Amino acid sequence: MTPSASTPAYDDLCQRHQRQHRLQHLHALASWDQAAFMPAAGAQARALALAEMEGLLHQLGTDPALKDLLDRAGQESLDDLQRASLREMRRVWRAANALPQSLVEAKSLANSHCEHAWRSQRGANDWAGYVENLRPVVRLAREQARLLSDESGLSPYDALLDQYEPGMRSAEVDRVFGELRQWLPGLIRQVMDRQAGETVLAPQGPFPAAAQRALGLDAMKLLGFDFSAGRLDESTHPFCGGVPEDVRMTTRYREDSFLQSLTGTIHETGHGRYEQNLPREWLGLPVAGARSMGLHESQSLSFEMQLASHRGFATLLEPLVARHLGQQPAFSADNLNRLMTRVAPGYIRVDADEVTYPAHVILRYEIERPLIEGQIEVEDIPALWDAKMQELLGLDTRGNFRDGPMQDVHWGAGLFGYFPCYTLGAMYAAQWFAAMRRERPTLDKDIAEGNLAPVFDWLKERIWRQGSRWETPELVQRASGEALNPAHFRRHLESRYLG
Amino acid sequence: MTPSASTPAYDDLCQRHQRQHRLQHLHALASWDQAAFMPAAGAQARALALAEMEGLLHQLGTDPALKDLLDRAGQESLDDLQRASLREMRRVWRAANALPQSLVEAKSLANSHCEHAWRSQRGANDWAGYVENLRPVVRLAREQARLLSDESGLSPYDALLDQYEPGMRSAEVDRVFGELRQWLPGLIRQVMDRQAGETVLAPQGPFPAAAQRALGLDAMKLLGFDFSAGRLDESTHPFCGGVPEDVRMTTRYREDSFLQSLTGTIHETGHGRYEQNLPREWLGLPVAGARSMGLHESQSLSFEMQLASHRGFATLLEPLVARHLGQQPAFSADNLNRLMTRVAPGYIRVDADEVTYPAHVILRYEIERPLIEGQIEVEDIPALWDAKMQELLGLDTRGNFRDGPMQDVHWGAGLFGYFPCYTLGAMYAAQWFAAMRRERPTLDKDIAEGNLAPVFDWLKERIWRQGSRWETPELVQRASGEALNPAHFRRHLESRYLG
Repeated sequence: MTPSASTPAYDDLCQRHQRQHRLQHLHALASWDQAAFMPAAGAQARALALAEMEGLLHQLGTDPALKDLLDRAGQESLDDLQRASLREMRRVWRAANALPQSLVEAKSLANSHCEHAWRSQRGANDWAGYVENLRPVVRLAREQARLLSDESGLSPYDALLDQYEPGMRSAEVDRVFGELRQWLPGLIRQVMDRQAGETVLAPQGPFPAAAQRALGLDAMKLLGFDFSAGRLDESTHPFCGGVPEDVRMTTRYREDSFLQSLTGTIHETGHGRYEQNLPREWLGLPVAGARSMGLHESQSLSFEMQLASHRGFATLLEPLVARHLGQQPAFSADNLNRLMTRVAPGYIRVDADEVTYPAHVILRYEIERPLIEGQIEVEDIPALWDAKMQELLGLDTRGNFRDGPMQDVHWGAGLFGYFPCYTLGAMYAAQWFAAMRRERPTLDKDIAEGNLAPVFDWLKERIWRQGSRWETPELVQRASGEALNPAHFRRHLESRYLG
Repeated sequence: MTPSASTPAYDDLCQRHQRQHRLQHLHALASWDQAAFMPAAGAQARALALAEMEGLLHQLGTDPALKDLLDRAGQESLDDLQRASLREMRRVWRAANALPQSLVEAKSLANSHCEHAWRSQRGANDWAGYVENLRPVVRLAREQARLLSDESGLSPYDALLDQYEPGMRSAEVDRVFGELRQWLPGLIRQVMDRQAGETVLAPQGPFPAAAQRALGLDAMKLLGFDFSAGRLDESTHPFCGGVPEDVRMTTRYREDSFLQSLTGTIHETGHGRYEQNLPREWLGLPVAGARSMGLHESQSLSFEMQLASHRGFATLLEPLVARHLGQQPAFSADNLNRLMTRVAPGYIRVDADEVTYPAHVILRYEIERPLIEGQIEVEDIPALWDAKMQELLGLDTRGNFRDGPMQDVHWGAGLFGYFPCYTLGAMYAAQWFAAMRRERPTLDKDIAEGNLAPVFDWLKERIWRQGSRWETPELVQRASGEALNPAHFRRHLESRYLG
């Protein structure tokens, strides 16, 4: 992507995107700090600062000169990569142009406000307080969906989904989730019946946060995280933020249990390595960004589910756990693997096993879609939540808002249309590992022997280094030799849990 | 400062400054993170992001519309406070307008680069490597000084000094420092002779960093730091950054010694409380900012020297030290006070006692001024440093660059003209406490009894809450009843150390 005298419009666009990338860096860092370190009284000033920057970035991304530049660049003599780059520039420009700056700033303020209050409201199970802040967030998200829908011709929910998973439509999600809904409840029952006879030793706590942190850092090292270009800190809701050049991961510690933090850290490490290995030579251009959030989750779930819950990986974890938490019968590789593959319906999505996890996503999808499309209101969420938790996982959640609709950061932060990406990601991850095994039959033995390079090399070559060069269907085809095929996910679950 | 239909130009200016304040928030946070948390490989992207923001802020601060707005606001019917506010707006506008954006961005990049490399070069005593990065920093600072000089008519060094201490001139610094140079060496000798006969118990380490941190936090609480609006972290060079709404202090820990970190933390707490108590109702306008860096240092030194080295304050520290570091004979209030008032020439400015401290400042002033004015070059610094350390403090520093000219962050970060503020601050601090004692004869007894409110109330009312409402001479007169009077500093040292 060397600048050339023959592509002045394209080069101008590149410079503008690189400038936005530099400013976006400051926004990403301030968002990370907001969740990880910011003291409570700093919230208002931070919210204003973030909203100001979002408004500014929106202004730069909708500069009236862009239309003409994009048109002229389309006439220039571009190579294939530059054409892909221009396609991605057009995509972000269309989405930005659909929204007025006032909406962008209002959304930022409402989201910051709701998310900040949520941090204390969740602990207090204060649904009534939360819903007051959620209402304006939903109102603005609906407005955003309507405007994006007007621009794209998609339905309002699809227009939001398209921001996180370009090209994906709810008709496809319905098809895939509908199929899942057929076999998932039966599979959960079968696995639970089978596991009922297993002996699993419970680890004996407490596990001091400092020891858990050291264990998490060692697991990140094992998984190849580059600490010269990233950090691990703590926040209420774990996430992977920052910028590709400086990845900021967070986790949280419960002293009575260490596996949630460990698997959460491994999950975020998958996101982190994707970011750290995006193509550097195009950095700052949309084409150098992660392809989609479904693809992003396919990396975190490749790490958390495909790899960390693999029996062979438990052999690698055993000495790390012993080093930081001492010796216990529960820390044998066999028992660690049984703990990490234990299937049991639970309230909390991020703590769910990989078999029940899709139920959490289906539930959220089936609530957020009618919420965005105006068929239900925020007041209707708890009853729907209770009914679906009963139906999908057989759990009674009535009155327990903190472990119900208040458990996630997403809705309060205005992220509607994101949840399907988790289960799409689980499906992609299963598809990646099926392809890896076809190409390298020794893969499972490699993992057990601590030779993780074949996994990382495959992901780096096929996914990470591709950035957004290909649209998702082509990336999936090139990486795995076929289109999205949910059969791999079902086969993975059946083989691991019933095999 | 209520918006009014009759002051449209002034109101427009206010809105512009508030917008810059919000963007400046992101810059301040990223600078803090750069020093406290950023991993090494993130340096380049961070430097570019900070430079981009500095360029943007400069662009906003030199918008061609400002000249007319400032002129028109001057014709509007403003109250006294608004007039002061407009005066400060003009001041920052003039300084910004003197510099082209390209210089602002180049300075930011050169400073980031030099400061980042310095963090490892200092430990390696790598003067040769450091000087390569310092050279462009000095070149750009000279260019900045020349342009500010052209605009203001001040000498190049005075033009830089005026940025940190508006209204102060090197002629006045020469007068004050010249007088100091007369009596300081004699005073140091006298105090050392007197202290030679004292028995001082050395604390027995090691002192774990975690315990020192807990002690520092307790000291900050005692000193009234608002933890809901600020934090304490670690960095190579302690500083107080962030924004008034969210103050980010740093310190550093040496496990063989705890007093440096403790007194450093107390020092930064003085800066922090000034920021936390700036007038909120004008926040975002230049008039709400700290008056000057000399005034800022007068707060940190009020805390570190006037208060923490006070015999009465040691009585308050004694139980805190015991709580976090255990019981030792060296931790008696008497001995703590002797340790904190021990006078001995040393290499490191920030670790210096208050009697030898001015020598460190005079040395730096006498080097940076000819450096900026082109009479010497960066290569000349070590020999001058060695000669002046010998002359002022009788120390041989040859070859020891890490504890010599590489010890401070200032020059590498492009901060020339700042150093005099430390000693001006020490003089102001002595003047504040002299005024407090005149008004409240029980002050020393109050301090020993843990009643620090009279000190904080005085500082809050006279200094913190005034922001930049008055120019420095008027603020000093209003606060203490007289102009800057270095006699108070001499009297303070003689009374504390020879009394």
